[in-house]
Amino acid sequence: MGQLNIGLFGFGVVGEGIYNVLSQKQDLGCNIQKIAIKHPDKKRNAPQALFTTEAEEILNDPNIDLVVELIDDPHAALSIVSEAMKKGKSVVSANKKMIAENHLKLIELSVANGVSFLYEAAVCGSVPIIRNLEEYFDNDLLTYVQGIVNGSTNYILSKMKNENASYDLALADAQKNGFAESDPSLDVEGMDAAYKISIITLHAFGKHVFADNILRKGITSLQEKDFQYAKEKELVIKLVAKSCLNKQGKLTRVSVLPTFIEKSDALGLTNNEYNGILIGSSLADEQFLYGKGAGRYPTSSAVLSDISALKYGYKYEYKKGLQTIGIAAEQPAKFYISFEHDVEFDDAVFEVIEEHYVGKDREYIIGTINYNKLQQSNLLQDDRISVISFN
Amino acid sequence: MGQLNIGLFGFGVVGEGIYNVLSQKQDLGCNIQKIAIKHPDKKRNAPQALFTTEAEEILNDPNIDLVVELIDDPHAALSIVSEAMKKGKSVVSANKKMIAENHLKLIELSVANGVSFLYEAAVCGSVPIIRNLEEYFDNDLLTYVQGIVNGSTNYILSKMKNENASYDLALADAQKNGFAESDPSLDVEGMDAAYKISIITLHAFGKHVFADNILRKGITSLQEKDFQYAKEKELVIKLVAKSCLNKQGKLTRVSVLPTFIEKSDALGLTNNEYNGILIGSSLADEQFLYGKGAGRYPTSSAVLSDISALKYGYKYEYKKGLQTIGIAAEQPAKFYISFEHDVEFDDAVFEVIEEHYVGKDREYIIGTINYNKLQQSNLLQDDRISVISFN
Repeated sequence: MGQLNIGLFGFGVVGEGIYNVLSQKQDLGCNIQKIAIKHPDKKRNAPQALFTTEAEEILNDPNIDLVVELIDDPHAALSIVSEAMKKGKSVVSANKKMIAENHLKLIELSVANGVSFLYEAAVCGSVPIIRNLEEYFDNDLLTYVQGIVNGSTNYILSKMKNENASYDLALADAQKNGFAESDPSLDVEGMDAAYKISIITLHAFGKHVFADNILRKGITSLQEKDFQYAKEKELVIKLVAKSCLNKQGKLTRVSVLPTFIEKSDALGLTNNEYNGILIGSSLADEQFLYGKGAGRYPTSSAVLSDISALKYGYKYEYKKGLQTIGIAAEQPAKFYISFEHDVEFDDAVFEVIEEHYVGKDREYIIGTINYNKLQQSNLLQDDRISVISFN
Repeated sequence: MGQLNIGLFGFGVVGEGIYNVLSQKQDLGCNIQKIAIKHPDKKRNAPQALFTTEAEEILNDPNIDLVVELIDDPHAALSIVSEAMKKGKSVVSANKKMIAENHLKLIELSVANGVSFLYEAAVCGSVPIIRNLEEYFDNDLLTYVQGIVNGSTNYILSKMKNENASYDLALADAQKNGFAESDPSLDVEGMDAAYKISIITLHAFGKHVFADNILRKGITSLQEKDFQYAKEKELVIKLVAKSCLNKQGKLTRVSVLPTFIEKSDALGLTNNEYNGILIGSSLADEQFLYGKGAGRYPTSSAVLSDISALKYGYKYEYKKGLQTIGIAAEQPAKFYISFEHDVEFDDAVFEVIEEHYVGKDREYIIGTINYNKLQQSNLLQDDRISVISFN
């Protein structure tokens, strides 16, 4: 392909970064032809003539081959991305929520219109997880993918552990340092991670699970005592997104849960705002990818890699299939559950109780729970109850 | 592509592993048609009719699309691989020495004959470094690649550090546990790492450097006192392969050297037989890939990924070019040099001396040395002298 003509939606730090690189590196052969923005009056570091507030100026321009969508609003993004593909334009997007919630529909649309739809930046920034699952770990022998896929919560958990900080203090610090949004709920409640593991699961195993059906608990219920328990056992607590396939090719688990990890494990060493992902295969033991999962440069880098791949007509091939599926969730697994004495707790959720410790204010129970029972219980919703998975 | 017919050279642990997976997973559509071996009388776990001692039986068979070369001998491998490509067959190889020493010639041959030539398994086993450099980090913005690319030496250095073991003891332990060859010289003298960073440099920067021209010192000269120094400074010593590009697109360094690394850096945490590679880009900060660099399963996994990619006609594209080049080696860098008092040492090699410590038996000097001076000196060859780079 010769020149690639790009219509850009959004001119935040990532959009501007992309614009800067592509204008400085003319030899990449990528030309940003138009940039759609919401607020025309903001001062911006690019020629005024490039900007428009009319999406149609890009969508209806037959010279534009590629739409790069970098806006926040998932609803607006969906309509832009869908319209672009219908007009025969390829799309690069970083919008994980939009993608996870409309994944199969969007893929259908891209196939029907013969265009590429790439979104590496939507999952763990510059960590090339999607491309590796598509291209390299494509031989059907994967057994699990698990990782720390949300930098905000990892920063908060690292802070809570290292400084014995409370959740509220650690969150405030993360916000002050730009590692958490002013409304952090998508991150701390695990939805952001759920979107990502949903997207990962499709590329790892060819199966689509809606984020809402993912076993999920965020980090807001974790208490100092939980960290103390972890410390005594030489463990660390991480928010781990996990997707597992059994030998019969059935998903046995897709979850986002606080999880005890050995200190010296790769995920135990993934601290602060970093992301890390383990890919388990029946042949290669474990493969680990690690890097910055969000922020200006990592996201820009992933978007640029997608743009660059499009120069060569790259498409995801979804070789492992595209199946919407439930989870075979009869699997029992080991959990630690802690709560204060005044919380009414029905321990019938456990198949087997291994330990029950009652302290001055709090108690904890360790035992085996079936995933479906956990999903049906109120334990994941109840903010007074800590639920931590053993890995 | 429909069925892929494979001729396999070598039936060691990796060859047998590949055979097992491909026969069990018929749906991969890869059929091992013939296996060339040296010793026909060995008992092997595959039907007798598959084996031959005649390379020509594979090379002259027009039904065979792909030659998978997994033999030890680099000379024999070169002739098999060249012949296969001339006959229009694609090639997957794990032979780093053969590839590094004949890289451009082999690529020319593959292009001239319109076949694929893939070799992910030659560099860091299952760590998908080549594929990521080719496909994902292909947008010309890389500034360096550095890593621990040899598992044997990393195992030995980890042992020396953790158990205050001498080099000889640590080597013996590595050999006992299958992490070092009975003749470990290629590993411990850094040649294995030099082959790998040569191959990496071509895919990262489009420039070919012969392994013999790489600034190289192995780990055989390291002494307890060096580890003691590292410990005092909260550093660890790793054998690091490194390739750097400056802003003018010139290679400023390609080296394999013992290197001081911060304990908590990604490479500092890469211990025992593991490999880890950092990819630095002007956009994405650092990306880190980590996994097992050698051994049956990791190597098999990489070979299988290459085979699987061939099903879709995958070829490396060498988008960054194919240039044979010298190194702009006027760069000064900081080194630690230690030796016993009776070694005659000319400190004129230093541009600037920062520290000179003289102890009971040994002394060390820390200062700045130009790469070309270091290359021309005898410091890299003299086994009585420790040379450790500051990262």
